[in-house]
Amino acid sequence: MGMAVIDINADLGEGFGVWELGDDLALLDVITSANVACGFHAGDPLIMRRVCAAAVARGVTIGAQVSYRDLAGFGRREMDVAAPELTAEVLYQIAALDGIARAEGGRVAYVKPHGALYNRAVRDSGQARAIADAVRAYDPVLPLLTLPGSAVQDVADGLTVVAECFADRAYTASGRLVSRREPDAVIHDRGAVVQRAVRMSVDGTVVASDGSEVTLNARSMCVHGDTPGAVELARSVRAALTEAGVALEPFA
Amino acid sequence: MGMAVIDINADLGEGFGVWELGDDLALLDVITSANVACGFHAGDPLIMRRVCAAAVARGVTIGAQVSYRDLAGFGRREMDVAAPELTAEVLYQIAALDGIARAEGGRVAYVKPHGALYNRAVRDSGQARAIADAVRAYDPVLPLLTLPGSAVQDVADGLTVVAECFADRAYTASGRLVSRREPDAVIHDRGAVVQRAVRMSVDGTVVASDGSEVTLNARSMCVHGDTPGAVELARSVRAALTEAGVALEPFA
Amino acid sequence: MGMAVIDINADLGEGFGVWELGDDLALLDVITSANVACGFHAGDPLIMRRVCAAAVARGVTIGAQVSYRDLAGFGRREMDVAAPELTAEVLYQIAALDGIARAEGGRVAYVKPHGALYNRAVRDSGQARAIADAVRAYDPVLPLLTLPGSAVQDVADGLTVVAECFADRAYTASGRLVSRREPDAVIHDRGAVVQRAVRMSVDGTVVASDGSEVTLNARSMCVHGDTPGAVELARSVRAALTEAGVALEPFA
Amino acid sequence: MGMAVIDINADLGEGFGVWELGDDLALLDVITSANVACGFHAGDPLIMRRVCAAAVARGVTIGAQVSYRDLAGFGRREMDVAAPELTAEVLYQIAALDGIARAEGGRVAYVKPHGALYNRAVRDSGQARAIADAVRAYDPVLPLLTLPGSAVQDVADGLTVVAECFADRAYTASGRLVSRREPDAVIHDRGAVVQRAVRMSVDGTVVASDGSEVTLNARSMCVHGDTPGAVELARSVRAALTEAGVALEPFA
Repeated sequence: MGMAVIDINADLGEGFGVWELGDDLALLDVITSANVACGFHAGDPLIMRRVCAAAVARGVTIGAQVSYRDLAGFGRREMDVAAPELTAEVLYQIAALDGIARAEGGRVAYVKPHGALYNRAVRDSGQARAIADAVRAYDPVLPLLTLPGSAVQDVADGLTVVAECFADRAYTASGRLVSRREPDAVIHDRGAVVQRAVRMSVDGTVVASDGSEVTLNARSMCVHGDTPGAVELARSVRAALTEAGVALEPFA
Repeated sequence: MGMAVIDINADLGEGFGVWELGDDLALLDVITSANVACGFHAGDPLIMRRVCAAAVARGVTIGAQVSYRDLAGFGRREMDVAAPELTAEVLYQIAALDGIARAEGGRVAYVKPHGALYNRAVRDSGQARAIADAVRAYDPVLPLLTLPGSAVQDVADGLTVVAECFADRAYTASGRLVSRREPDAVIHDRGAVVQRAVRMSVDGTVVASDGSEVTLNARSMCVHGDTPGAVELARSVRAALTEAGVALEPFA
Repeated sequence: MGMAVIDINADLGEGFGVWELGDDLALLDVITSANVACGFHAGDPLIMRRVCAAAVARGVTIGAQVSYRDLAGFGRREMDVAAPELTAEVLYQIAALDGIARAEGGRVAYVKPHGALYNRAVRDSGQARAIADAVRAYDPVLPLLTLPGSAVQDVADGLTVVAECFADRAYTASGRLVSRREPDAVIHDRGAVVQRAVRMSVDGTVVASDGSEVTLNARSMCVHGDTPGAVELARSVRAALTEAGVALEPFA
Repeated sequence: MGMAVIDINADLGEGFGVWELGDDLALLDVITSANVACGFHAGDPLIMRRVCAAAVARGVTIGAQVSYRDLAGFGRREMDVAAPELTAEVLYQIAALDGIARAEGGRVAYVKPHGALYNRAVRDSGQARAIADAVRAYDPVLPLLTLPGSAVQDVADGLTVVAECFADRAYTASGRLVSRREPDAVIHDRGAVVQRAVRMSVDGTVVASDGSEVTLNARSMCVHGDTPGAVELARSVRAALTEAGVALEPFA
C-alpha cells in the first residue's frame, strides 16, 4: 500500500478594509491550499494581494473562494441568483483573484464556493451548474472543491471535482455532514478531531454518528481559522498527520 | 504624406443591475475601442460579459475602464485612496474584465481610468503612478489611455501611453481641456464637432478658445454615448472621418 | 350603497446615483400613495429627498418601500436573512425615509415590502413577522400594504394590514396572483386592464383565469411605472376610475 | 469656582456583519456619550440596534456618527461629495439611527462627523455647511460635536456647536491638533495622558508642543476604543477625572 496523501485547505483573506478575521499568516504555515476570498463576501483587492504574496512566499497553493455578492451577510445567506448572473459573478471573482495572484508570482489553481453558495451548490444542480460553467469558461483545468456526493459532481462535465472532508464535523451514515442545527454537529475535543483527521487521511474513512464506518476518500481536508483555538487545532492536526506518515500535498 | 489614422473610443457597459445607461449596441457600430466599466463605478459581471461578447462579435477592441470604488457617485468624486490600495483595486478590475473578455474570445487590450480617477491622474503623480503600477503588474504591454500632457506620461516608465482627444470639448491654448465649469467647455453644434473631429484626425490640431492652433497628435478620439443625441453625433463623426479618408483603427 | 373608494399606489424613487428608473413626476400626478425606495434595493438619500419633496408638493402620501439589501439584484432575489437582522434592516429603512420625508414637510404613512421580500412575506411567516416587528418597533400606527391572504396578516397583531390589488395581473380562483412564469400572468390589453380596475374598485371583485368571480375588497390598487406605456396606462386607469365615480383617496 | 464638568465620548458600533471592532460593552462603562456608526463607514442595522440597546440600558447618551459612504475605506478617505448629496446622506444617517435608538427607548441626542468627513469639515466650509444643513433639517436642537476653531462653528447658524478635546493628542500653540504625520502627534505614556485629561477638564487648558499653555474649554473629551490598551487607558482617564472631582456628564 502506498503512502497516504492529503491536502489541508482553509479560508484566508476574509477581512475587509480595516476589519480583520482570522490569522492568515499563522494558517499559511499549517495549510497546503489557501481558499482566498475574492471580494464578494469578504476580502478587498489589497488584502487579496497581500494574502497571495504571503501564500506564494510559503509555497501554498491559491484557490478562488467564490461567493454570493453579500458583504453584509458574509456570503452565508442563500440567494436566488439567476444562473447567467451567478456564472458571470463567479467568473469575475476567479479572474480578479487570478490576476492578483499572477502579479505576485502565483496563480489560481482551484475554485471553492463559499458559505451559502457552497451549501446550495451541494443540492441545487442549477446553481452548481452555474458555478461549473464559470470554471469551464475561465479555465477548465481548474478543479472544483466540494463535498463528496455534491450536485457539483453531477454537472461538472469535463471538469475535475475534488472531494474534501472535515475532521471536526460529525457525519451521517450516508456520508453527509450532520447539520449545524444538530447538537453534536461540531466535534470540540481536540484529541478526537486529531484522531479523525488521521483516520480520514490514512484509511479514507470516518466513524459516523450512528457508529458505522463511512468511506470518504477525500483528497483535501478543510480546517477552520476564525474560531478561538482554531489555529492551534489546525497545528495539532498537521503534526499528527505528519507523524502518521501522511504526505501533505496540495491537490491542484 | 501617409494616410491619417485614428481610433474612436467610448465608455460602455455603464449600467448596473436593472439600471441601463447609454446604448451600447448602437455605439459598438461606431467605435473601434470600447472602454468597458469593471464594476467599481458601473457595470456588473453579467453586463461586462454581454458587452464583451458584443464587442468581440463586432471586432471592437476592449479596454478596462478602471475607477474608484464608488457606485453611488459613478466614480465622479475624487477620493484620497492610498497608492497601494489604488494599485490593488485597478489590478483587480483589469484582471476581472480580462477574464470575462477571454471567456468571450477577446481580451483586455488597454486601460483607461474613468471619471474622477482619470482627472486626478492627469495632475496627481501619486495616483497616476498607482495606476501605472497596476498595469505594470498585470501586463506591461497594455497601453494607458490619457490626456496629452498628463502626469500619467511622467510615471509610466516602460509602459505605452496613448493620448486621446475630444471633438466636442473646447481646448486652451496650451492644449488642455477647458474646464466644464466654463460656459463654452462643451461644443454642441454638430457641424462644428464634426469639423473639429476631421481636423484633429487629419492635421492632428485643434483651434483653441483664443483662436490659436494647438497640436494634439492624438491617436484616439473619445465620443460620448450617454447624452441625448450622442449616438447620432458619434455616427456623424465617424461618417465624416471616413469620408475624409481617415482610417479608423484601434490603437491597441 | 356608499361611494366606492380606492387608493392608487406605485413604486417611486427607484433610481440610484446617475441611474434613473421610471418617470416619478408623471406618476405623482396619477397616484395617491408613493412607495418610496429606501436605499436597499434602489434609491439614494438625494433621490429620496427629491421624491419626498415632490410627493409633499402634490399631496401624495409617502410609504416606505423596504427591501432586502441587494442593489445588484434590485431586491428581486430571495435572501435567507435571519429575523433579527431583517427586523433591524426594515426599521433602519423606515426611519431613514421618515426623517427625510419630515425634513420635506411630510412623513412615512405606511410600509410596503418590495420585490422578493414582498413575495416571501406573503408565504413565509418568519420573514413576515420580522417585517411586522420592525413596524411595531418604529410606529405601530403605520399600516402594512400586502396581498389579500398574505402571511403578513397572520403575524401582524396590533398592526393595520391593508390589501392591494393589481388591475393588470391575472388572478386564480382562490384570489392569488397567477405566477409570472405562466403565459397569461400579465394583462396587456389596455381596455381590459381599465375595465378590471373599475370592477375591482366598484364591486371589489375580479374575474379569475377560470372565469369565476373572486372577491378582493382591496383598499389600494398598485400600478407600475417602469415599463413602456406604464404611465399612460396608469393615467387611463385613473381617468376611468374617476369617470366611474370612484373616489381616489390614500388609505393611510 | 464651580465644579468642573466634562463628557467622555467614544466611537461605538464600528463593526460590520461578522466583523468586529473595539469592545463596545467595555467602553459603555467608561463613557457618557456614544458616537454610534450609522452604516456608511461601519455599523449595520443590527449592530446599531444592539449598541443603542446597551447604551440605553447604561444611561449613555447616543450620538449619530455620520460619515462618507465608504465601507471599504472606513470613511477615512476624503471624498468630493457635492453639498446637496452630502446633506441628504447625513440626514439619512441621523434619521436611521434615531429611529433605531427610539425603538430601544433612547434617541439621537447629538451629531459627530466621522474620520475624513470630520477632518474635512474642520477646514472646508462647504462640507461643514452641508452637515449643518442636515442637522437643521432633521432637528436643530441636536448639537454638533467638532474641534474648537472648526469651520463647522462658522456655518452652524442657529445650531449648538460643542468643542471636544483629546487627552492623548499633542496640540500646537494655536490650539490645533498636531498632525498624525508628525512623530509626537500621539501621546502614548499613560500617566501623561491621564494628567492632561485632568488638566483639560479642571482648568480647560493643555500644554502645547512648544511648552505654551493653550485654552481649550472643551465640554467633551474623546477617547479611543479600537487600539490595544485603549479601554484600559479610557478607564484610567475616567478614574482620574472622578478622583479629581470632575463631574462626568453628557453634554446633550
